Amino acid sequence: MSNSGFQNSDIQGPLKYISKEEAHALEKELLEDYRFGKQQLIEILGHNCATAVTKAFPLRVLPKKQPTILVVCGPDQNGAIGLVCARHLRTYDYEPTIFYPKRSTDTLFKDFTIQCEKMDIPFLSYLPTEVQLINDAYNLVVDAVLGVEAESQEMKEPCASILGTLKQIRIPIISLDVPSGWNMETGNPDGINPEVLISLMAPKKCVLQYTGKHHYIAGRFLPYDIQKKFELNLPKYPDTDCVVQL
Amino acid sequence: MSNSGFQNSDIQGPLKYISKEEAHALEKELLEDYRFGKQQLIEILGHNCATAVTKAFPLRVLPKKQPTILVVCGPDQNGAIGLVCARHLRTYDYEPTIFYPKRSTDTLFKDFTIQCEKMDIPFLSYLPTEVQLINDAYNLVVDAVLGVEAESQEMKEPCASILGTLKQIRIPIISLDVPSGWNMETGNPDGINPEVLISLMAPKKCVLQYTGKHHYIAGRFLPYDIQKKFELNLPKYPDTDCVVQL
Repeated sequence: MSNSGFQNSDIQGPLKYISKEEAHALEKELLEDYRFGKQQLIEILGHNCATAVTKAFPLRVLPKKQPTILVVCGPDQNGAIGLVCARHLRTYDYEPTIFYPKRSTDTLFKDFTIQCEKMDIPFLSYLPTEVQLINDAYNLVVDAVLGVEAESQEMKEPCASILGTLKQIRIPIISLDVPSGWNMETGNPDGINPEVLISLMAPKKCVLQYTGKHHYIAGRFLPYDIQKKFELNLPKYPDTDCVVQL
Repeated sequence: MSNSGFQNSDIQGPLKYISKEEAHALEKELLEDYRFGKQQLIEILGHNCATAVTKAFPLRVLPKKQPTILVVCGPDQNGAIGLVCARHLRTYDYEPTIFYPKRSTDTLFKDFTIQCEKMDIPFLSYLPTEVQLINDAYNLVVDAVLGVEAESQEMKEPCASILGTLKQIRIPIISLDVPSGWNMETGNPDGINPEVLISLMAPKKCVLQYTGKHHYIAGRFLPYDIQKKFELNLPKYPDTDCVVQL
């Protein structure tokens, strides 16, 4: 390619599983050097996650009559990505329901919440402790609780209770970026075991411990120069897809 | 659907071509009531436009050896959508070049510009007046000059000169929302004649005068209640596509 001298076919070497420091440096570079906005990144990643959900669980394969999905959103950025994911799932004719117990006071996150409320997406006021109610009502659960924010939040309420519930449910869990309760680098052998994992931009080190069925990477927008600098060796995204399955 | 009582199959009646007042009211509702951010809307629409370009002109059908595209961006929102469109075209392995002669001082637009510059997308410092140079160098031109901002800008420089050049080129033009130089409601029989038109969210009244080959609507994210309120009667978007061809 004459523009940049780089294209996907230049990729050499195995897929990189990035450390905590690399994940933070990558996001910092996107925000500070490339001048991406937080609103913009959350919108892109939430849309990409919704697209991955439709690939893992197309409408026609859902076991229940209604295409219900429970989206559990944490207090920080992973939760905001979950809100955007729910909104796009609604436009794809799924029926998302959101549980978002600890709402951020940040205007950015409030606006994403209002977008969902105005689109008549139901919000649960509490998560049933009787897990059979969740198994019966929903086809699957999107875990947007903690993501890379795991370490600062994992022992706090309401996240600890949510994790206790998620560990018991039997319908598939789809985790965004880092399964909730996992350490970004070392994982968590006693934690939840999602059936689908959607890595945002690049897989984190903990994904080496992941034994679920499907692993997607979401974030085709990531500039080539950043991919090169961090030696991500991402697989080629097919056609104009924003996600790629490994 | 139990969530909202509305789905695409409820659509009755012909596709609506909206007036200037309706277009403004629709955007106002998105920004003020639904709390969408400008950055978010421009990102969504720019991405959707890039996807439409790939559908109208897949890489394999481009006549030239290099997949070059000239993206001409005006000073306002249509131009910012063009910048985002160029950025996504780059991730789809096209080779966009941007001409953006009148740069906005708005931080929002500056950030979209920096994202393109940091991705090594070339910016032209002037548009060749010899149109054969444009015909020879690019497969097609994306017209993101004026859009719905046409009326306030059409007689001013540098837009008037750009329009003079666009009228003479022979490679296909893809216009975003409203072909530049057209009136949003009445069109312009003496104006440019794009081969592809991408309506943003809903077609404007002027599209009734459009005689080009392909017409796409971009903007699946548009909430159902807004579609209903403005009686848009949009066609069903296929699968998880963000654009639909009419």
